Amino acid sequence: MNISSRIQAVPASTIMELLTYATEAKKGGKKVYHLNIGQPDIKTPDEFFNAVKDYKDDVLEYALSEGMPELIEAIQKYYKGYNINFNNDDILILNGGSEALLFSMIATCNEGDNILIPEPFYSNYNSFAKAVGVEIKPITTVAENGFHFPSKEEIVSKIDSKTRAILFSNPGNPTGVVYTKEEIQMISDIAKENDLWIIADEVYREFVYEGDYTSLGNIDEVADRVVIIDSVSKRYSACGARIGSIASKNKVFMNQILKLCQARLSVPTLEQIGAIELYKTPSTYLAKVNKEYRERRDVLYNELIKVPGVVCKKPAGAFYIVAKLPVKSSDHFVKWLLSNFDIDGQTVMPCPAEGFYATKGLGVDEIRLAYVLNKDDLANAAKILKIGLETYLKLNK
Amino acid sequence: MNISSRIQAVPASTIMELLTYATEAKKGGKKVYHLNIGQPDIKTPDEFFNAVKDYKDDVLEYALSEGMPELIEAIQKYYKGYNINFNNDDILILNGGSEALLFSMIATCNEGDNILIPEPFYSNYNSFAKAVGVEIKPITTVAENGFHFPSKEEIVSKIDSKTRAILFSNPGNPTGVVYTKEEIQMISDIAKENDLWIIADEVYREFVYEGDYTSLGNIDEVADRVVIIDSVSKRYSACGARIGSIASKNKVFMNQILKLCQARLSVPTLEQIGAIELYKTPSTYLAKVNKEYRERRDVLYNELIKVPGVVCKKPAGAFYIVAKLPVKSSDHFVKWLLSNFDIDGQTVMPCPAEGFYATKGLGVDEIRLAYVLNKDDLANAAKILKIGLETYLKLNK
Repeated sequence: MNISSRIQAVPASTIMELLTYATEAKKGGKKVYHLNIGQPDIKTPDEFFNAVKDYKDDVLEYALSEGMPELIEAIQKYYKGYNINFNNDDILILNGGSEALLFSMIATCNEGDNILIPEPFYSNYNSFAKAVGVEIKPITTVAENGFHFPSKEEIVSKIDSKTRAILFSNPGNPTGVVYTKEEIQMISDIAKENDLWIIADEVYREFVYEGDYTSLGNIDEVADRVVIIDSVSKRYSACGARIGSIASKNKVFMNQILKLCQARLSVPTLEQIGAIELYKTPSTYLAKVNKEYRERRDVLYNELIKVPGVVCKKPAGAFYIVAKLPVKSSDHFVKWLLSNFDIDGQTVMPCPAEGFYATKGLGVDEIRLAYVLNKDDLANAAKILKIGLETYLKLNK
Repeated sequence: MNISSRIQAVPASTIMELLTYATEAKKGGKKVYHLNIGQPDIKTPDEFFNAVKDYKDDVLEYALSEGMPELIEAIQKYYKGYNINFNNDDILILNGGSEALLFSMIATCNEGDNILIPEPFYSNYNSFAKAVGVEIKPITTVAENGFHFPSKEEIVSKIDSKTRAILFSNPGNPTGVVYTKEEIQMISDIAKENDLWIIADEVYREFVYEGDYTSLGNIDEVADRVVIIDSVSKRYSACGARIGSIASKNKVFMNQILKLCQARLSVPTLEQIGAIELYKTPSTYLAKVNKEYRERRDVLYNELIKVPGVVCKKPAGAFYIVAKLPVKSSDHFVKWLLSNFDIDGQTVMPCPAEGFYATKGLGVDEIRLAYVLNKDDLANAAKILKIGLETYLKLNK
C-alpha cells in the first residue's frame, strides 16, 4: 500500500529519543529538571474549571462550526483592549493554534507553494507545511543579534513566484525575540510590495518583558492581508484545552477557512465554555503571570551568560531562551547531561535547537531553554546547567 | 494575495441556505421539525460529565499526543468485546472522526491520488479530500437496492494507477445501509488484489437494527491494510466532545499518523477523561439506545413508504434514511415545505441529498432524513412529511 511522500516528509519528534535518556536517568534515581518543553506550570484560572463544571445540558451537542458566539465575542473584546478592532465575523475558533496554522497554510498555498519563515522557528510549522506540501523558505536569524530580522534586501531575496506568505511567531518561539515596530513595519512593507499574506502567530503576546509590542493587528495598511493566530494555551496556562483562533479582516480568506471549520464540524463544546471565562480573566492575572515569567527569565539568563563563550542576547518575550554554546554538538551535550552528569543526584534537560532550523547544519551548537519551572527549581536548574556546561567544556577541551 | 485553488474547491455547506428558509419559517411562527441534521437528542451518559467535573489538577496540561493511555485501553477493550484484537499501540486518539479522516487521507495519498468511495457519502469526505488535493472516485449506489455495493467488476473498473484506498462508512451515512458479510469480503478481496488501503468509517457500528454486522476489524487477511475510523459522537451521544480514534495493525501507517498527532500536540484533556467513562458504559446502555432508534426508524419509514412513487428500502443501520421521491427537485420540495406548507403551524425539514453525491445530477430527487427526534415528535413529523409530499405531488402534477 502507498504511504504518501508528503507524510513521510513530516519529521518525527526529535525529542523522543532524548526523552528515553531522561527516562533512563530517572530510573537511575536522578532528578531531571525539564527545561525542554513549553508546558507552563502556572495554575489554570479556576474560572475555566468552574464554567465547565457548571454545564447543565443533558446532551453534549456540536457547537457551531465557527465557534461559540460568546467565545468569539470574548476574543473580540480582548483584542479591543489592544486597540485591534475585529468584528465578530472576523474571528473563528479553531482546535488550538495548531489547526489554525494548518488551515491557514491550506488556504494560502497550493502544493509546491512556499512560505517565508524566520529560523529558528516552532518546529511544528515544518510538520504542518510538509503534511500539505508547502515549502518553507527560511530567513536565517542569529543569536548574535538576538534573532532579530536581517535586512529587507535579504528577506526579499528569498521571495520567488511561488511565495504566498510570511509566517512568524512574535514573541518568538523558540527565540523569545520581540520584533521592533520598525521590523513589523518592514515585514508589512515587504508583504504589500510582494502581495503576500502575513500569518502572525501571536500566542505569546502577553509574555513581553520590556519594550513595546507591535501586533500586526495594529498595522492598518496591511489589515486585508494579515491573519492572526491565537490560542489560550500559554496565555492562560490552558494547553490541554486546545482552543485557538484565527482572526482576519479579509472576508474572502475567512469564508474559505469557515468551509474547513464546517467540514470538521466543531471545536469541543465544554472547552469553549471554559475558554469564554479565560478571556474574561482580569488583566491583573496576566500582569502577575508576566512578572513571574520575567523574574524566571532573569534567573535563568543571568546564570547562563556567566559561562564564557555562551552567545545569548536577553530575550524580551515568550518563555524561551535560545543560546549558542561553545560546543560542537548540543545534542551530545544534552545526552551527556542526562547520562553522565549530576549534582547531588540532580541534572537538567535543555532541548537541542537543531530541530528549529530548516537550513541543514544550523543550530547544532544551540539549545532552547523553557523557563516553566517555579523560581526555586529554576534557580537550582540554572546553576546545575551552568556547572554542567563548565564541566562539559573542561572535559571536551 | 493568493487563495489556494484547493481550498476554493472545498464546497461551502449547502445546508446553510436552506437553514435561512427554516429561520424565516420560525420567524413566521411555524414549528419546524429538523430531520436534516445528525445531532442526536439522546442524553449523554452522566458518567462523562461526572468524570470531567472530578478533574482535580491545578494545571490543564497537554495530554500525550497519541492520546491518554486509559482512553486507548478503554477503546482496546471495547473492540475486544467484538473480537477485534488491537494492541494499545494500534490505537491513536484524534479530534473526532473528522481529524482521523483528514490524517488518513494525508497519509495514504499524495496530491492527485484518488480514493474510491461509494456514493451517496458523508459530504465532508469530499471537503477533506479537496482540502488536501485528493480526488474521490465515486462508486454509485442506488435507492432501488438499498444502496448496497454494485458488482466487483464495476468497482474494480474505477481503479486506476493513482487509486490508494477504498473509504466508506458502515453502517452508512447518509444511506443507513449495512453491508453484508459478502460485500465486506468482496471489498477486502478488491483491496488485496489491487494493493489498496481500506479506510473503514465505523462510527455508527452500534446502530444496526437487523442482520449481522461485519467489521473490517474481523477480516484477518486484510488486517495490515485496514484503518478503522471511530468516534464517541453518535455512539454515546457526545458529538460536542470531538473524540475520535484511528485503529490499525499497520505499524508503518500508525507511525506516520503519530507524527501528525505530535505536530498538533494533543487532543483536549478533559474530553478524553470524559470519553474514558463513555467507553466503560455498560452494553445495556447501547442496547437501549439501539432499540430506541430502531423504533424511530420504523415510525418514519412506515409513514414514508405509504406515498406512491417513493423508492426506499428499509435501511438496517445508522439513523438516516435516503429516499428517492417522485419529484424533480428535492431542494425545491424542501424549500416549499419550509415556505409554503404547514399543518397546524408545523412543518418538517429534510435534507436534499444532492450534496452526498460526487457525480453531477445524481441525488437531485432524493432526501436524507435523520431520525433524531423523540418518538412522539417523530411520528408527528413523519405524518407531516407524508401529507406534505402528497400535497406537493398534487400541486406539481
